[in-house]
Amino acid sequence: MQLEIRSVRKDDFPAWLKLWEGYNTFYGRSGETALPSEVTRMTWSRFFDAYEPVHALVAEEAGTLLGLVHFLYHRSTTDIAPICYLQDLFTAPEARGKGIGRALILGVYERARIAGAPEVYWLTHETNAVAMKLYNSVAEKPGFLVYSRTMSGQHGIPDSKP
Amino acid sequence: MQLEIRSVRKDDFPAWLKLWEGYNTFYGRSGETALPSEVTRMTWSRFFDAYEPVHALVAEEAGTLLGLVHFLYHRSTTDIAPICYLQDLFTAPEARGKGIGRALILGVYERARIAGAPEVYWLTHETNAVAMKLYNSVAEKPGFLVYSRTMSGQHGIPDSKP
Amino acid sequence: MQLEIRSVRKDDFPAWLKLWEGYNTFYGRSGETALPSEVTRMTWSRFFDAYEPVHALVAEEAGTLLGLVHFLYHRSTTDIAPICYLQDLFTAPEARGKGIGRALILGVYERARIAGAPEVYWLTHETNAVAMKLYNSVAEKPGFLVYSRTMSGQHGIPDSKP
Amino acid sequence: MQLEIRSVRKDDFPAWLKLWEGYNTFYGRSGETALPSEVTRMTWSRFFDAYEPVHALVAEEAGTLLGLVHFLYHRSTTDIAPICYLQDLFTAPEARGKGIGRALILGVYERARIAGAPEVYWLTHETNAVAMKLYNSVAEKPGFLVYSRTMSGQHGIPDSKP
Repeated sequence: MQLEIRSVRKDDFPAWLKLWEGYNTFYGRSGETALPSEVTRMTWSRFFDAYEPVHALVAEEAGTLLGLVHFLYHRSTTDIAPICYLQDLFTAPEARGKGIGRALILGVYERARIAGAPEVYWLTHETNAVAMKLYNSVAEKPGFLVYSRTMSGQHGIPDSKP
Repeated sequence: MQLEIRSVRKDDFPAWLKLWEGYNTFYGRSGETALPSEVTRMTWSRFFDAYEPVHALVAEEAGTLLGLVHFLYHRSTTDIAPICYLQDLFTAPEARGKGIGRALILGVYERARIAGAPEVYWLTHETNAVAMKLYNSVAEKPGFLVYSRTMSGQHGIPDSKP
Repeated sequence: MQLEIRSVRKDDFPAWLKLWEGYNTFYGRSGETALPSEVTRMTWSRFFDAYEPVHALVAEEAGTLLGLVHFLYHRSTTDIAPICYLQDLFTAPEARGKGIGRALILGVYERARIAGAPEVYWLTHETNAVAMKLYNSVAEKPGFLVYSRTMSGQHGIPDSKP
Repeated sequence: MQLEIRSVRKDDFPAWLKLWEGYNTFYGRSGETALPSEVTRMTWSRFFDAYEPVHALVAEEAGTLLGLVHFLYHRSTTDIAPICYLQDLFTAPEARGKGIGRALILGVYERARIAGAPEVYWLTHETNAVAMKLYNSVAEKPGFLVYSRTMSGQHGIPDSKP
């Protein structure tokens, strides 16, 4: 069976949602800490909004969605062109070990290269050894760590402009 | 003397440039690997472009700029509101140990909170022990690492749209 | 009493909504053709989203909101800096003739000038003689007309990216 | 010969520039009032910037570019989805009367529809009878006029953020 990496379509919603929920559960966003459904709805709508630089690809095989990847472009102070942040990557548990994650990453590379983005980057947890085995084969690990500070009002509608 | 954290102004350019070059040199972007001047010009102009979510604060004491911080807002698939990426932080070597870096980070927090951003995050190199001592006192280190892949055409004008 | 022109705040929502509904009714968007409430909610949230170049000012007198103006920045192919589109202007019927509309327009001018926008523009209907009397005193009418084509799916969530 | 309406490519620059200069000359932007070359360079680079919602199509016949159209998406307070502003349209003088302008407009419609934009609009001067004959056949003229106020610093780099 042929694996196809393609842009998400509106009629993919139910199948995409199942993958998205699997991904969120992996990161502990389920049950009481689940992502609010209005965040999911907004993110989904942004994939189809010509003004938003937020994109989704899916991996389809024989009419079934087996994986997703989300990426977005944002400014960088050290580049004229925008850089590409690959934010989410997920393969359905029953479809692992078949190269779907790699194919999704390469799909982002291809689109970022066409878009002229000088860099694609993503974050992974330092304990995620399985993922890092794949990542080490397609990218560099330049030794940068994330620091983060949560502001009050997480996931919320902002209070006012800066 | 009073330290003031404020938005950059157009007439700060020469003083800001000196700090920016100091910062870039620290990251190895000097001499043959210097940031192209057109990138610096574009980044500077974006601080003053009402359409670009890219911002700069400076630390001023007695009319002298002693530090800079650059931050930008970008989309996140797990939030309705944009998140805040603190991309660059630099204190003039002669002004270190006076709390300028901390004051600049807190300045970003204040603006991000007003802007309703649920999170401020940044990256630092795992070998940057001095910086991490400060960062550990103002933020979390949730254990995420960066993976990155450079596309051809770094710093360049993109080739076409995705 | 002092008239103040200021950025909208989150606790202005009920008073802003009343003005917004008055404005929409004036343009025939009421009853069966009313603006969907989810559009109003999204527009409101964009005023407070640091990533969106969409802004609102209100005119306040003695604690009461008497008028609103909405403006946004967008690209132009003939300018480096973004230009400013003043999309909506409304004064409460009971507060007309006091210069509120003019004060709101001047408030946009002030912010656009600070933002470096080379131009503020807006549209008005050719039959709106009352408004044009005001507009003729604060702006040029360079002789341009609007052509427009409604696509299917008005007000809707887009179907896919271009 | 087959007319093709397609996205602009980087190697179109010389041929696009000739059309763009023809268009600007038509609007009086030539000689002493010519558009600064840095504006042209920036606009050209935005067509290829994945972060900028600014797009260009060209009409090609037998390897020659005969027309251009530029369009961009921007927010609207009365829509969730962005609307599409068709800013520039130009057909080479020697190629007029062959339906190229119409084909370029329909090309924008097609892309805007796919992008889910609820509306495509543009401006034309009230004296441009030739253009209006075409526009009347593909769009509505809802009776809106432009008011405009030039701020100091036209075409310039902005002074600061709002």
